[in-house]
Amino acid sequence: MRYIIGVDVGGTKISCALSDLSGNIIETQVVETNASEGESAVLSRIIRLIDKVMIDRDITKEDVKAIGIGAPGPLDARLGIIIEPANLPFTNFDLVTPIKEKFNIPVYLDNDANAAAIGEFMFGAGAGTENMIYITVSTGIGGGAILNGQVYRGRTTNALEVGHTTVDPFSSARCNCGNLGCLEALSSGTAIARRAKDAVLSNIDTSLKKYKTLTSYEVFKEAEKGDKVAISIRDNALRYLGIGVTNIINTFDPDIVVIGGGVSKAGEVVFEKVREVVNERGLKTMTSGCKIVPAQLGTDAWVIGAVALAILLI
Amino acid sequence: MRYIIGVDVGGTKISCALSDLSGNIIETQVVETNASEGESAVLSRIIRLIDKVMIDRDITKEDVKAIGIGAPGPLDARLGIIIEPANLPFTNFDLVTPIKEKFNIPVYLDNDANAAAIGEFMFGAGAGTENMIYITVSTGIGGGAILNGQVYRGRTTNALEVGHTTVDPFSSARCNCGNLGCLEALSSGTAIARRAKDAVLSNIDTSLKKYKTLTSYEVFKEAEKGDKVAISIRDNALRYLGIGVTNIINTFDPDIVVIGGGVSKAGEVVFEKVREVVNERGLKTMTSGCKIVPAQLGTDAWVIGAVALAILLI
Repeated sequence: MRYIIGVDVGGTKISCALSDLSGNIIETQVVETNASEGESAVLSRIIRLIDKVMIDRDITKEDVKAIGIGAPGPLDARLGIIIEPANLPFTNFDLVTPIKEKFNIPVYLDNDANAAAIGEFMFGAGAGTENMIYITVSTGIGGGAILNGQVYRGRTTNALEVGHTTVDPFSSARCNCGNLGCLEALSSGTAIARRAKDAVLSNIDTSLKKYKTLTSYEVFKEAEKGDKVAISIRDNALRYLGIGVTNIINTFDPDIVVIGGGVSKAGEVVFEKVREVVNERGLKTMTSGCKIVPAQLGTDAWVIGAVALAILLI
Repeated sequence: MRYIIGVDVGGTKISCALSDLSGNIIETQVVETNASEGESAVLSRIIRLIDKVMIDRDITKEDVKAIGIGAPGPLDARLGIIIEPANLPFTNFDLVTPIKEKFNIPVYLDNDANAAAIGEFMFGAGAGTENMIYITVSTGIGGGAILNGQVYRGRTTNALEVGHTTVDPFSSARCNCGNLGCLEALSSGTAIARRAKDAVLSNIDTSLKKYKTLTSYEVFKEAEKGDKVAISIRDNALRYLGIGVTNIINTFDPDIVVIGGGVSKAGEVVFEKVREVVNERGLKTMTSGCKIVPAQLGTDAWVIGAVALAILLI
């Protein structure tokens, strides 16, 4: 039993990685989720992908020690049940049992952001720390925590929904969760893109007009080039992100805050602005020694996280 | 060694309790802090009070297993050093060593809100839970956390400064920490009193006018009687408190949030309003099973917390 399998089940794609027991990735394969086909189709697709990775590498299930699965929340990590994520067809669906029965291998499920946090803690930016908060700033904003050197999951295993903390109660920005003024509604890639589209529609003078599709990527690009509207949208989102990170530091007093996800890939400008707000608003005792750094695991972070989850729990 | 001593060092008074090893309080004594007299005077006063409690109960230091001390932060619980609290004369002061040397008994120091959290976890509203957040809403707002059944302190042992999380970045309410829009600046007893004084000074029609001194107590009292200005001040503060508690639940996914401190003593109205906001803003997965309850340990909470701290660590 020299191998670990990690699976990341996302709304658009399913990734499967084979690694050794130290987390070195040997093989990664990706298929479309095709979520609209429903739960049994997606489940079959996950199982076939795991099978294919083993077959392609000439490995039998007896060689695999554990399977880790990361999936979007809300879910119940203890029971292995996916509750009702926005982008997957599973509703109160036991994802662990059929996979465990099929392969006769221990299967561990966790929130994808938790898995990514474990990945960064074991193999990435958080290695060697005791108290690490990971946040992912992408289409949504999620998080995971390692506290006192252990994964912290909370009562329902859904802790660290920092995207749904209110950072501006009088904002008119509506969040997916139904609220106004959530961090996710103000700082996520989706929020940045929405404001960019609104700006273009309002006929304001901006270089963002030239794009047919607008994501946070174009906003960061045009801001970098000096477009005032893009700068304002970017800085507004990063200011709120800075407030979110300040609140995290004043609450958790962590060694390190690791920021991953698409928006973090915009580079140093993100970290500069966030640190600026943290220095302005945070309590010095805690902020002065707390690192705020980019995630290290790159585009495979989620599936590496699923591998890390399994390694942690075996 | 059948006894524990707990000491709460506050800005106005020092309390000392003698308990058995199960936390049953046998004796409590209180003296003025007289903080203005400086650090060595206050240190002597603490030592004399511990001495007096033992003498009055005819106990020698050989009968005492440990001394727990709660004091305002920021402090370093691991090193036993009080860093620079607002209301005490200690600056980077090692409070533990002189007391340990004087009595030759193990001495444990922690943040007073952490100590109160441990007290509620061991003997109060949080007994039997795994993940408990305690917040105290009084002149300031502080907190403590028990996570995975263990005290969580963070890197510098100053975690859970939830009073200094931003809940309204555009508020003009200035916090003691220097920021605008901190929870403490909007929901603490001091914040409520400040708004009441402003209302009276503005010559608005309110029954609050009849008081010479205004604290949150009078605001809650007049609100209860129907004074519109008092109701507005009260509800505004409790709304922000509700946002703070929502953020705590969405972040920690706790079993229970225990609210103590002077403002919580205003009773059911506090919990009603807080739960209302939590139900409106929180994520159902986490909020639906999370209890929000008053602290149980009453006026002695802090010194009982200091006792609990010592019992936890012996």
